[in-house]
Amino acid sequence: MRSENIISNKILIVTFLTTLLFLIGITTQVVAEESPCIACHKTITPKIVDAFQSGAMGTPGIQNPTASKMAGGLSQISCENCHGLEHNSAADFTKAKMPTPDTCDACHAPKVVEFNEGKHALAWIAMNAMPGTTHQAKPIIGGQKGCGGCHKMGSKNKTGIPEYRYGMGSCDSCHTRHKFSTAEARRPEACLPCHMGFNHPQWEMYSTSKHGVIYAMQGDTWDWNKHLSENPYPAPTCQICHMTNGNHKVITSWGFLAVRLPEPDSEWMSYRTIILKGTGVLDPDGKPTARLDVVKAGKVARLTAEEWQAQREAMLKVCGQCHSANYAKQNLENADAIIKQADALMAEGISTVAELYKDGLLSKPKDYAYAYPDLLTFYEAPSPIEQELYGMFLEHRMRTFQGAFHMNPDYMHWYGWAPMKTSLNFIKDEAKKIREGAAIETRVKQAAAAYPLSIAAIVIGAISAIVVAILVGRKTG
Amino acid sequence: MRSENIISNKILIVTFLTTLLFLIGITTQVVAEESPCIACHKTITPKIVDAFQSGAMGTPGIQNPTASKMAGGLSQISCENCHGLEHNSAADFTKAKMPTPDTCDACHAPKVVEFNEGKHALAWIAMNAMPGTTHQAKPIIGGQKGCGGCHKMGSKNKTGIPEYRYGMGSCDSCHTRHKFSTAEARRPEACLPCHMGFNHPQWEMYSTSKHGVIYAMQGDTWDWNKHLSENPYPAPTCQICHMTNGNHKVITSWGFLAVRLPEPDSEWMSYRTIILKGTGVLDPDGKPTARLDVVKAGKVARLTAEEWQAQREAMLKVCGQCHSANYAKQNLENADAIIKQADALMAEGISTVAELYKDGLLSKPKDYAYAYPDLLTFYEAPSPIEQELYGMFLEHRMRTFQGAFHMNPDYMHWYGWAPMKTSLNFIKDEAKKIREGAAIETRVKQAAAAYPLSIAAIVIGAISAIVVAILVGRKTG
Amino acid sequence: MRSENIISNKILIVTFLTTLLFLIGITTQVVAEESPCIACHKTITPKIVDAFQSGAMGTPGIQNPTASKMAGGLSQISCENCHGLEHNSAADFTKAKMPTPDTCDACHAPKVVEFNEGKHALAWIAMNAMPGTTHQAKPIIGGQKGCGGCHKMGSKNKTGIPEYRYGMGSCDSCHTRHKFSTAEARRPEACLPCHMGFNHPQWEMYSTSKHGVIYAMQGDTWDWNKHLSENPYPAPTCQICHMTNGNHKVITSWGFLAVRLPEPDSEWMSYRTIILKGTGVLDPDGKPTARLDVVKAGKVARLTAEEWQAQREAMLKVCGQCHSANYAKQNLENADAIIKQADALMAEGISTVAELYKDGLLSKPKDYAYAYPDLLTFYEAPSPIEQELYGMFLEHRMRTFQGAFHMNPDYMHWYGWAPMKTSLNFIKDEAKKIREGAAIETRVKQAAAAYPLSIAAIVIGAISAIVVAILVGRKTG
Repeated sequence: MRSENIISNKILIVTFLTTLLFLIGITTQVVAEESPCIACHKTITPKIVDAFQSGAMGTPGIQNPTASKMAGGLSQISCENCHGLEHNSAADFTKAKMPTPDTCDACHAPKVVEFNEGKHALAWIAMNAMPGTTHQAKPIIGGQKGCGGCHKMGSKNKTGIPEYRYGMGSCDSCHTRHKFSTAEARRPEACLPCHMGFNHPQWEMYSTSKHGVIYAMQGDTWDWNKHLSENPYPAPTCQICHMTNGNHKVITSWGFLAVRLPEPDSEWMSYRTIILKGTGVLDPDGKPTARLDVVKAGKVARLTAEEWQAQREAMLKVCGQCHSANYAKQNLENADAIIKQADALMAEGISTVAELYKDGLLSKPKDYAYAYPDLLTFYEAPSPIEQELYGMFLEHRMRTFQGAFHMNPDYMHWYGWAPMKTSLNFIKDEAKKIREGAAIETRVKQAAAAYPLSIAAIVIGAISAIVVAILVGRKTG
Repeated sequence: MRSENIISNKILIVTFLTTLLFLIGITTQVVAEESPCIACHKTITPKIVDAFQSGAMGTPGIQNPTASKMAGGLSQISCENCHGLEHNSAADFTKAKMPTPDTCDACHAPKVVEFNEGKHALAWIAMNAMPGTTHQAKPIIGGQKGCGGCHKMGSKNKTGIPEYRYGMGSCDSCHTRHKFSTAEARRPEACLPCHMGFNHPQWEMYSTSKHGVIYAMQGDTWDWNKHLSENPYPAPTCQICHMTNGNHKVITSWGFLAVRLPEPDSEWMSYRTIILKGTGVLDPDGKPTARLDVVKAGKVARLTAEEWQAQREAMLKVCGQCHSANYAKQNLENADAIIKQADALMAEGISTVAELYKDGLLSKPKDYAYAYPDLLTFYEAPSPIEQELYGMFLEHRMRTFQGAFHMNPDYMHWYGWAPMKTSLNFIKDEAKKIREGAAIETRVKQAAAAYPLSIAAIVIGAISAIVVAILVGRKTG
Repeated sequence: MRSENIISNKILIVTFLTTLLFLIGITTQVVAEESPCIACHKTITPKIVDAFQSGAMGTPGIQNPTASKMAGGLSQISCENCHGLEHNSAADFTKAKMPTPDTCDACHAPKVVEFNEGKHALAWIAMNAMPGTTHQAKPIIGGQKGCGGCHKMGSKNKTGIPEYRYGMGSCDSCHTRHKFSTAEARRPEACLPCHMGFNHPQWEMYSTSKHGVIYAMQGDTWDWNKHLSENPYPAPTCQICHMTNGNHKVITSWGFLAVRLPEPDSEWMSYRTIILKGTGVLDPDGKPTARLDVVKAGKVARLTAEEWQAQREAMLKVCGQCHSANYAKQNLENADAIIKQADALMAEGISTVAELYKDGLLSKPKDYAYAYPDLLTFYEAPSPIEQELYGMFLEHRMRTFQGAFHMNPDYMHWYGWAPMKTSLNFIKDEAKKIREGAAIETRVKQAAAAYPLSIAAIVIGAISAIVVAILVGRKTG
């Protein structure tokens, strides 16, 4: 009897659980199917629906802990949570809201807070901070295909920069819509579409370094579902070094410009002062300009010793997982030393061009604040010597120091240091040619004046001779 | 009794089928081993045999539907089908036929028809269409290692271009010999060996774009055996956009040159006219030249509005699988707008050089048809200013528009637009220097003439003085 | 009875073996845990310990055949074998020995012997062979981040080049510490961190060639634990061609400089003689200099016909596994022919600059041995024309011939040949400008002299006229 009871109890329990699971299944299914968006978009844009449903947020049964915030009365996260309830037909597509970090904040507040403290949230500031960018046509700079294609990751406020409706999110820069995968965002390729190319080839440097090569060979076998704080990888990824423990506050010691203040090394400080003048952060007399505020706002440089030191120590801890403390320290200090070497070349280049302005051999462009080279005009620089100077700064100095920190001797040396040397050679030679050209110009002008003078001499001589001859003839005739 | 009968019947059937399968197995085995090629090449070039046998055509039992066409009396596809029956020993290796698309056509006619309608079949035309290529030595241009290394994909007819015996096929450009895998040809890397580098870095652009990054992270887990028409991937590959549904007719809206006719935007048309003059498709007076026929034959530009529109609409459908119709439309139109911006710079560059020809400051090279820059001479351009112009056109304008369409803001902006601006700055400065140089030359010549004149003046003056003095002395003596 | 005995015997044997295995297990475990290094470093640098223990040498039970050499009384390979016994606390970390190939030689002598016969062991020689390198600051050249970052693979002897304590090993260049994996070292990415970039982009060439593309698509499924002599891959890797059968003696036919002696082709020899003068291996009169000894010591060129031929034949065997003997031969000979074409351009470039030295239009830098261009000064070349010449040699000639041999038509043609042509155009134009500039300088100097002369003429003429007029007036007055 007892065993029968047990069996019948078991049957009851099993039946109950099965029914429960079945009902949950139905409910979930029903919820997912109830979203009117999905029914329609399965036909219109099927792969968006596939992507969403393949992700954690679109998986039936994965409920938002803040369920009371669910949109449209659904108990399941769906399209409405991010895009609102107003778009209901093909005709009113413009009513679909485009998400921003505030949208994600509803459920992922701690991560959005971290994001907002780091440099990524500041990316949009650069969009009208550069004097050259505002000169370009909208398609070149705007939100989809030019500078904005990456800088759109930053928070968009009232910046005055024209935006596009589409592709202007932030979180989806790494957590690609509509799957929004954490596993995907942990792989180094998540950083690639922005951190590559001309002035920030971190992907090229990492992927061809020993670190990146280990990833290339083994990465597909690593567990990307583990949280970054577990660091389950035998070699570092971008995220392990720059988003330690999954912290979304991304920031580095040296910043984008490899400039820190104060600088205890006075020789180095003399180079840096010239670089700060060249970037227009200091005026030619060394006084701070309005651009210093942009540098501060955009956090592209470290402006206190503590700020710099805190990031350095965080990095030493990361390196220390695989390398001895002394190795890590020496390695990073070698990279620091390379910045100083690069700054010496850079300062010499800037000074060479600045001297031409001082001596009136280059004339101040009307949109320049000072008769001094402005590295931030980029490719709008007014002369070949200044185009070379901008390349030396934005392509080659960048590669020199970024290559040093990303363990890529070839980038540091051959794509950084070597072309800096070649640029400096060109700049000095071009400056010499400009000076020689001006000297020849003067001499040619002077020499050209000799021509009418010598004609005059002949004419005067001849006339004098004739006149005198006539006089002599007349008097003695 | 009945059940016994059934069993015995079953045994009979099983025995029969087993025997049949066994015999098929033997036959197949025998056929594969009978091919005299394989027996010998297993020793000589073992990996060709491995590759062939690992592919669908070399798998025993995979029979050609057109079995009557089987070569050498074999009932199984083997080496003889493509290489003929004439090569039988090491001594007569030159008798082995080298396959062409016609060889593949025997079994894959519909795909060869599609291939022949697209641009890939026209690739060989470029080989002697460019005025610069015919100047190069054979190893630089020929079929294996230079331009021909990729352009060999085109159909080889009587083009007058010297070919090599080896590596001159077409289908094996993507379906690598001797496996000829469809799964392999569906992966984006199949396009890579040709669509990379200087003037067509589509691989670099795609693989570092968001689209390519999703492939890089997940591609190894996708099912490459599915037909392209099923589009089983969450992100596009080259093939999904450019070989939709597996159609081998590859062609794009804008073509290689990013030129379409007619152009409704008159401002843009004025830029394009100058580009067409610069490419020698129009003469300096705007009249079509013989090169227009090459452009038509090679399909490197769209020459009717319908042709362009058909490709655009096909692409919008592809984009529409993942993006809203409006997003896709706006995105492609932004890319169109970038071509216009790039064309404005390009036209200014061409015009600046053309003015130098017009003013006699550059002289017409003897192999040029007109006193006008010819962008298609490439690196045979006669002066640094024209070398810069060719780079501006073939490297940087290409990257500007290709980067815009391949979702790569860094390529568009920093490897396209930025160096176009730098090139234009150089071209304008160099033109100014050429003009100033000529002016100085004139003034120096004039000034130099002053030297003998002033000597003459002194001599004449002195002689006159002496003569007069003598005369005066004599008269009054 | 007998069967019982058998059973009981079996039980005995099984018990004995189990006990034995258990004891071995315990022993091994104990040994691994006994190493005092590991206990401490598990906390300090956990990932070094993980890496070591994930490799063959760190796997308990994998014993060294030369167990008598085991360090610290351990019967298991552990940290002490390579780093010695002297470092025992955080304070004395400098006492930890840093391994060299001699360390590895204790157990892997045959491989170290092979390594020492090849070019990799000679990599450090280049560090002070180049006249430009000794000019650079230590961080630029030293062992971690600049040239030394890769060249450290070479054997370090008394070369006078400052080394760093860390990262100066050799074997770990490919067998990454502390796993020292053979499987990893067999993958082409093992070569990548050094064979990439400016003057040796073999990775870029391979990975975008048909060979590399097959690896990219399939490589993850290949068996990397098989010995290279089995060549289990359908497409070649770096190692299959350059470390055939796993031979660590890496050396190529053409060497780093693509120079061989003697050269039977007299036309080609005339180009090569100029290249040897340009690299300072011959003096301007064609006599060998001290640099020839460096070329010999560093094996960067083949100096006998036999040496060259032996490597060519080895390579033909490798190619012959997949390609017909005739295909392989023709393909490599086409690449040879491309070197000749590139050498013709290179020689013209060198000669153009050499003529400027000869005519006194470039003056000998004080650290140059001869009034002749020196390609090995690299980016320290004294003028833009020589900077261009160094780029033509070290970036573009390299890519031309390396691209030809690595089956990459785009690198050969567009990143090699095309910029060689552009460089030559610039060099010839710059030489013309230097000559014209000098001529103008002379004429301007001469013309400038006309100015005082014509003033003098006027003054003399006027004075003469006045004097004569006075004389005439006085005489006839």
